[in-house]
Amino acid sequence: MTSVISVPLPQSPYEIITNPGNLSKLGNYLATLKLGKKILLLSNAEIFEHYGEIALNSLQQSEFEVSVHLIPAGETHKTLDAIAKIYDTALEKRLERSSTMVALGGGVVGDMTGFAASSWLRGINFVQVPTTLLAMVDASIGGKTGVNHPQGKNLIGAFYQPRLVFIDPLVLKTLPEREFRAGIAEVIKYGIIWDADLFEQLEQAKSLENLTDLPDSLLEMIITRSCQAKVDVVSQDEKESGIRAILNYGHTLGHAVESLTGYSQVNHGEAVAIGMVAAGKIAVKMGLWNEKDAQRQRALIEKTGLPTQIPSHLDPNTIIDILQTDKKVKAGKVRFILPTAIGKVIITDEVTTEILQNILQES
Amino acid sequence: MTSVISVPLPQSPYEIITNPGNLSKLGNYLATLKLGKKILLLSNAEIFEHYGEIALNSLQQSEFEVSVHLIPAGETHKTLDAIAKIYDTALEKRLERSSTMVALGGGVVGDMTGFAASSWLRGINFVQVPTTLLAMVDASIGGKTGVNHPQGKNLIGAFYQPRLVFIDPLVLKTLPEREFRAGIAEVIKYGIIWDADLFEQLEQAKSLENLTDLPDSLLEMIITRSCQAKVDVVSQDEKESGIRAILNYGHTLGHAVESLTGYSQVNHGEAVAIGMVAAGKIAVKMGLWNEKDAQRQRALIEKTGLPTQIPSHLDPNTIIDILQTDKKVKAGKVRFILPTAIGKVIITDEVTTEILQNILQES
Repeated sequence: MTSVISVPLPQSPYEIITNPGNLSKLGNYLATLKLGKKILLLSNAEIFEHYGEIALNSLQQSEFEVSVHLIPAGETHKTLDAIAKIYDTALEKRLERSSTMVALGGGVVGDMTGFAASSWLRGINFVQVPTTLLAMVDASIGGKTGVNHPQGKNLIGAFYQPRLVFIDPLVLKTLPEREFRAGIAEVIKYGIIWDADLFEQLEQAKSLENLTDLPDSLLEMIITRSCQAKVDVVSQDEKESGIRAILNYGHTLGHAVESLTGYSQVNHGEAVAIGMVAAGKIAVKMGLWNEKDAQRQRALIEKTGLPTQIPSHLDPNTIIDILQTDKKVKAGKVRFILPTAIGKVIITDEVTTEILQNILQES
Repeated sequence: MTSVISVPLPQSPYEIITNPGNLSKLGNYLATLKLGKKILLLSNAEIFEHYGEIALNSLQQSEFEVSVHLIPAGETHKTLDAIAKIYDTALEKRLERSSTMVALGGGVVGDMTGFAASSWLRGINFVQVPTTLLAMVDASIGGKTGVNHPQGKNLIGAFYQPRLVFIDPLVLKTLPEREFRAGIAEVIKYGIIWDADLFEQLEQAKSLENLTDLPDSLLEMIITRSCQAKVDVVSQDEKESGIRAILNYGHTLGHAVESLTGYSQVNHGEAVAIGMVAAGKIAVKMGLWNEKDAQRQRALIEKTGLPTQIPSHLDPNTIIDILQTDKKVKAGKVRFILPTAIGKVIITDEVTTEILQNILQES
């Protein structure tokens, strides 16, 4: 079944289309968008080996003139230098204002393609074809694009909306389990911050640890409900000046854990899972949330096989230091997103250093 | 007298404020915009030597925390590498989302500052304080920001609007004559494409060759009427999909001349002047414009001391080749902006290669 979610941004509305087998119809869909003939397809070698041919054939059958630019895989290549190489290809292939960059890949490919598209000829068309669960339910939606500065993640970039987000859940069949679970962490996040019914459906699911255990209908529900939650939030706050901050639930502590473990030992989804459990504890300690719901959150995270504990070798005081230099700090106060019910969170800067030390020491 | 022009863009309205002596009030004005405390002031060494202290004092008196980043002067330094250096300073000074980059300089400083501001933390505040006539009446308005690719001008960049354009005509007193004339070329352009009355006032002015001959009131009129013309056009077409193209009057041929002379022998304004005279001839040849008005345009350009002839060593066929690879080419046809009256132009792709050869050979 095809699911279509509209993203009602005033200047640049677009749709998120989800359908198993979609990838072979990519060309058909793009043909309806009144784009120029030229497409630059961006991917990494591994993803391109799996899905490049299907995407390429589909685009060529719809008479697009397609070139391919491969980006080295991994966060360490998410740099301004790699963007400069995309510009070189854009020039060589003579992309025009009406041309389109298509991102076939996970978050890194999507973020880089979006930033390159936003800044070539002051903005050309951009389409997201996410191939990881994390990119499907999070990174591909909302217009955040960019690269890392040698001294910090995602410091360089732009808000730039895609013309289309095109999701084929079948491509997840080749996704490594650990990456799949990283996506599930964000799905649970949407359950806590926005959609209590999604949370309950996840609780009722037999298993969430492994993609192969999941019925297709559950997988589609997970993707579309998560996308809808993100769209609901983002369309109220395109440039992240208010409510959009709730999407950072679990991320405040999560980022600190990622950064202290060098972005390799603990992946993003795992760090968010750890951050959500900690945020739950803080909320309970502050009397904002009941213990029972916090336990339900923890149990669901455990069921997926995601971690719930801060790695024991990390020093609580070092974590607190990192929190206080995070870019989400306002006037020296660390901003936390804390649950008050399943499906509801608040934004607060009233978490004291004392509470933090307390929670981090008992973890 | 303070002139305030409103730029009514739906998502990001701002004002252009012009007043002799403005520079010493920069801090006061910025204090009204609800910006964060941190400002990064960008300039080049020469401009900063003249005006840095006034700007800095004014900002510091209004209690902004100001850092300075100097960009090497000139178009050859308008590169992605130079942007990366701005990012380094932004990181070192810990700019936040609410911080502001202020461009104190000509078009190069403004374009680079705007692009850096658009892409640091996915967009921070940006203020234009143009110090050349060309930047005041053209580059600082309209949100075009960016840098050059080694193989082409302004290929990398973003549409990004300033929070304020702040003009002090007195800073033009130190502008070299030739640069002043380059700005006057764009002013004449506005007369032809939009504002017949501005054109007539320029015709009546005793001299336009030298800034020191100009009464202050005439200079202010020139700046504000030109800004208004650009705002009228840009606010109808923020992303350059239609009418905004008329701002390229004189630029089609102008760019070819600039590029063939290596961007040094003929400056931008001079190239535009040459391009306008040629466009006038084409319009007359095609029966779109009367000979008398074309003569008036030529006479006004001559009065300013700007060139009217294509440099004689340039080969007409080489120029035509360059025109046909210009980024304004649509489906192989060269798009020209041609006058039909003083104050009115049309956009056409019906200029044949034959007409072009004809005009270029007789020049």
